[in-house]
Amino acid sequence: MPARAAVILAAGIGTRLKSPIPKVLNKVGGRTIVDRVIDACEGLGCEKIVVVVGNHSPQVRAHITARLGEGAIAVQDEPLGTAHAALAARQALEGFDGEVLVTNGDLPLIEPKDLEPLFQLRAQGARLAIMGFEPENQLLYGRIIRGADGHVIRIVEPKELNPEQASVKACNAGLYLAHSKDWFRWLPKVRNDNAKGEYYLTDVVGLASAEEALVRAAFAPESAVMGADTQMQLSAAEAIFQQRRRAHFLAEGVAMPAPETVHFSWDTQIAAGATVEPFVVFATGVTVETGAVIRAFSHLEGARVRSGALVGPYARLRPGADIGEEAHIGNFVEVKKVAVGKGAKANHLAYLGDGSVGAGANIGAGTIFCNYDGFDKYETHVGAGAFIGSDTALVAPVRVGEGAYVGSGSVITSEVSPDSLALARGRQVEKPGWAAEFRKSKQAKKAAK
Amino acid sequence: MPARAAVILAAGIGTRLKSPIPKVLNKVGGRTIVDRVIDACEGLGCEKIVVVVGNHSPQVRAHITARLGEGAIAVQDEPLGTAHAALAARQALEGFDGEVLVTNGDLPLIEPKDLEPLFQLRAQGARLAIMGFEPENQLLYGRIIRGADGHVIRIVEPKELNPEQASVKACNAGLYLAHSKDWFRWLPKVRNDNAKGEYYLTDVVGLASAEEALVRAAFAPESAVMGADTQMQLSAAEAIFQQRRRAHFLAEGVAMPAPETVHFSWDTQIAAGATVEPFVVFATGVTVETGAVIRAFSHLEGARVRSGALVGPYARLRPGADIGEEAHIGNFVEVKKVAVGKGAKANHLAYLGDGSVGAGANIGAGTIFCNYDGFDKYETHVGAGAFIGSDTALVAPVRVGEGAYVGSGSVITSEVSPDSLALARGRQVEKPGWAAEFRKSKQAKKAAK
Amino acid sequence: MPARAAVILAAGIGTRLKSPIPKVLNKVGGRTIVDRVIDACEGLGCEKIVVVVGNHSPQVRAHITARLGEGAIAVQDEPLGTAHAALAARQALEGFDGEVLVTNGDLPLIEPKDLEPLFQLRAQGARLAIMGFEPENQLLYGRIIRGADGHVIRIVEPKELNPEQASVKACNAGLYLAHSKDWFRWLPKVRNDNAKGEYYLTDVVGLASAEEALVRAAFAPESAVMGADTQMQLSAAEAIFQQRRRAHFLAEGVAMPAPETVHFSWDTQIAAGATVEPFVVFATGVTVETGAVIRAFSHLEGARVRSGALVGPYARLRPGADIGEEAHIGNFVEVKKVAVGKGAKANHLAYLGDGSVGAGANIGAGTIFCNYDGFDKYETHVGAGAFIGSDTALVAPVRVGEGAYVGSGSVITSEVSPDSLALARGRQVEKPGWAAEFRKSKQAKKAAK
Repeated sequence: MPARAAVILAAGIGTRLKSPIPKVLNKVGGRTIVDRVIDACEGLGCEKIVVVVGNHSPQVRAHITARLGEGAIAVQDEPLGTAHAALAARQALEGFDGEVLVTNGDLPLIEPKDLEPLFQLRAQGARLAIMGFEPENQLLYGRIIRGADGHVIRIVEPKELNPEQASVKACNAGLYLAHSKDWFRWLPKVRNDNAKGEYYLTDVVGLASAEEALVRAAFAPESAVMGADTQMQLSAAEAIFQQRRRAHFLAEGVAMPAPETVHFSWDTQIAAGATVEPFVVFATGVTVETGAVIRAFSHLEGARVRSGALVGPYARLRPGADIGEEAHIGNFVEVKKVAVGKGAKANHLAYLGDGSVGAGANIGAGTIFCNYDGFDKYETHVGAGAFIGSDTALVAPVRVGEGAYVGSGSVITSEVSPDSLALARGRQVEKPGWAAEFRKSKQAKKAAK
Repeated sequence: MPARAAVILAAGIGTRLKSPIPKVLNKVGGRTIVDRVIDACEGLGCEKIVVVVGNHSPQVRAHITARLGEGAIAVQDEPLGTAHAALAARQALEGFDGEVLVTNGDLPLIEPKDLEPLFQLRAQGARLAIMGFEPENQLLYGRIIRGADGHVIRIVEPKELNPEQASVKACNAGLYLAHSKDWFRWLPKVRNDNAKGEYYLTDVVGLASAEEALVRAAFAPESAVMGADTQMQLSAAEAIFQQRRRAHFLAEGVAMPAPETVHFSWDTQIAAGATVEPFVVFATGVTVETGAVIRAFSHLEGARVRSGALVGPYARLRPGADIGEEAHIGNFVEVKKVAVGKGAKANHLAYLGDGSVGAGANIGAGTIFCNYDGFDKYETHVGAGAFIGSDTALVAPVRVGEGAYVGSGSVITSEVSPDSLALARGRQVEKPGWAAEFRKSKQAKKAAK
Repeated sequence: MPARAAVILAAGIGTRLKSPIPKVLNKVGGRTIVDRVIDACEGLGCEKIVVVVGNHSPQVRAHITARLGEGAIAVQDEPLGTAHAALAARQALEGFDGEVLVTNGDLPLIEPKDLEPLFQLRAQGARLAIMGFEPENQLLYGRIIRGADGHVIRIVEPKELNPEQASVKACNAGLYLAHSKDWFRWLPKVRNDNAKGEYYLTDVVGLASAEEALVRAAFAPESAVMGADTQMQLSAAEAIFQQRRRAHFLAEGVAMPAPETVHFSWDTQIAAGATVEPFVVFATGVTVETGAVIRAFSHLEGARVRSGALVGPYARLRPGADIGEEAHIGNFVEVKKVAVGKGAKANHLAYLGDGSVGAGANIGAGTIFCNYDGFDKYETHVGAGAFIGSDTALVAPVRVGEGAYVGSGSVITSEVSPDSLALARGRQVEKPGWAAEFRKSKQAKKAAK
């Protein structure tokens, strides 16, 4: 099998999105579009991936560099067309000898299985393989004109279609596969003698034909090659992504009474035998084990929910929340960077941030881990079997020993010994009749107005 | 251009809604239906708007009077039919000389652009212009019978249709435009010699024809002229409203991965470059600026979210919440009548009611602005750069100076000086071994049972 | 009318659900599927209901026994086919003389009206009545082959269909009605000389025909007889259930702007004139009275909301919450086993568990009923007209008298007399300049790094 490489064109500005976020850094399923395209290329076994970026978006450059290194960057100085962009990758691919896929960087739903047919066409003798699709509305797309033998003759832009060509359903998706030697012989020959004065990738079809090189087309579903030019398109791609994940998790044996109300990320992992109630959002980095129940209105990110745990309703798990087996995290409870032990419970209105809760411990309603002093974060550790009374502030850094009790309403600033009781609250005093007087006076004032 | 006026028929009871709320006071997009019809009439430039109300709903009368004044009210004493209702507007329109639109008051989705064609027909010579539509299911509607020249001959009620008429698709939407002089000549001539003994507006077609006055019909989409007779219809109108707002905001450049889960009000304003996550409700009076992110499960009403602010998940912004640039309002936090300064943060479980939070201040988890004494509300002001430790009660009226610290778990009742530390909490005491004893005793009791 | 009985086949394992929960114990609308089938049989007036369970699921047996008693259980030792399962019911039905419906136990949407036609066929002379349906996709189902007179001749399994039979739309739903005497004469004659070596219920059609007993088929909509073999099917059944309840409550006069976002249980009761905002979950056991408003993002279970009460947004009502007329339960408030009196308010961030709140009382933000000591639950009672200042811990068992005031931030451990003021909080102290020093030192440390 020839070596594989990919050139991803990510220099587009995406003005129709009307967003400060560069086009390819918008996300679907919680993952940037360009990362999704890179994922697909990696899935195809591309040993070299070059991303062509524009000077206008240092954010894209930084993003790609962080993932693939500086060597993966090619810069297109001026926006002079797709062929000009692809040619910018020449230096980065110097020394590479093999097949090069040239693809748009804004294909939010592309997957390796959609691209593999291009490589098959090459294996079957095509010198240039291009990706086609049959969109519902083909008005805006160039058409792939094929001869009687099915070979591609040329691509005609929508403005230049004659009536016969206008009836062609096969549209150009903008993905091309050829050998590196062919690419870098063809690309410099592309000319810009057209209305916009741009260098178009579609011209390589003509250049290949001129060499009598065989050009063939593979076809992908419209969803696979849909772009992300507008917010409407982005949300349509997201909807397709979510539908697929919902179907996937149902098929895997996750119980979801209302799957249409559950939102997943690309890396969400949920085991068979888990249950997800309506209105749940899985941001990135979540793992849910079997028998766990994620109740309604919960929001999870970067969290692990172990077997048999009960989360929600209205639980917010943030990165580093590790909810132990059979543990319960209840309503209006936020957990961040806290390992909650087996069978421990924090059922109501609490903030657990930075630290740990031992197995079987009970965190009362209204408990707050006071983890921040305006500069640094500190940890709170609650021992196994400890009981934190309701409405307690645990001022970190602080430890509550195993089996200790903290009285309700306490502000705990020092370590609590195991098996002891700690109290830190005011003494109750009563002023008899005060309320009656107060009411009388207030009512008199209101009456006087 | 002739002067324009409108008569809005709002005397219907709406018994099929089975609701204590009068029909036209039900809301779509957070705005009452009759206000939406008035909005459309104002959009058309009507200089005089009369709303015909019934004696049975003082609420409707009060609602209209509050918006348009007492002069806009006409009362239909008895429910004797639509023509009888329209005639009730005569006195209120005395002295008005121009075109008068007569319309039902329960058209939740009507817009000026839907009504303008009626005025165009008049400008082209029609004496009476009526609104038609082609419903999916036309069984219940009167048909507009037109001659070969397209002129309207008459309206036939569904019960009286002959087979040829039954196949007519053009149905009567119940909106009519004519000159005031024609209206008040025709309306008194309408007779009630029919099965129900009511005066029907549809009869003016016949009266116009009898004068050889030209009658023509304009057509609107079914959605534009749909009524609100049942809760099912109301929710259908709401769904169409929401779909339109979602498409609008996507087109404007608002990022929404799951637009179908975001609910807007008629006056919601969101700038391009803002992001709205799934499951967000915008009640009335909300403005969101560019770069702001409204996270999942948030509920906003009467609030302003400035550029770059981060709101939610699970944030509730109530009227008067003004969230400053780059400020953060996090989970299970409620803000009401509080201006939150630039870059300030209230990230977890807090109630901020009445007052202000200075720029860069940090409000710890579990902080409560205690703003109410059962009679009056008082204000809490937290200075710029102040740090409110977690689980703190700020008992209003109270001020925390700039740069001051409040220790976690405090109950602050007096002013805190700038740059000082305030503490107000109990002293921690420990009873060693108490918890072990307590458990032993409890377990013994359980065992004894 | 002959006596009626039912045999419900619930011994299936449901491996395709990939769930630890036995198939018939999965829920639709918050009710187990087998309970829904039993409900339908009870609705038909069956005086005896036998459920055939497998040895593999003691949970199912326990569940059925709890509802119907031990006498309703028949055990199928080995999974040798549906006829073998039905025959297992013989002993439990001993002495019963009448019509016996044999039905699958996994029909989540079956209703008496769907089954009644089988009894009608019997009344009209059929000895065996079988239920058919016309599925959208009939590939997997046995076909009901009928003669010219409409009488059923036989059921042909999908694998054995000839081309003519393959075009038959009538499929076998797996429900059969016959007299007990016929059943227990036919069932022992069913043979297992087929590929799988199983005893199939479909064979009774042939046995009846052999006796020249009339066999006829009734037909039900596909939704009525859909199974629950996969999580996808379960969620599809749930979706149909929810659609029906939404339409039902709209027709009843419940206002719901976004009915598609409201989720009901089988026993939810909501009166006309109530309003339900978007994103609300009704778990089982909820009653909502007229004029009540359930605001967005609320979750209710086992709760009663009385006339004119306002609940939410973000309210969680748990079993035993009884919200009085005109009472308000606001955001991030949880109520469990508490009767909240008329006009009382708990508007923000509170946990009310075990006890009562008197009429007109005001529960401040951040109030916690501390009801648990790690072993037992205790009650908190707040008297009518009392005012609980914000951020208060009420340590149960405790009573606050009528009209009493509790100062904000208090920890109340002893009874508060009526009309008195109770305070229990630390004294405020100030350390001038401390914060400025602290910041300086912290910044110096950060700079040093």
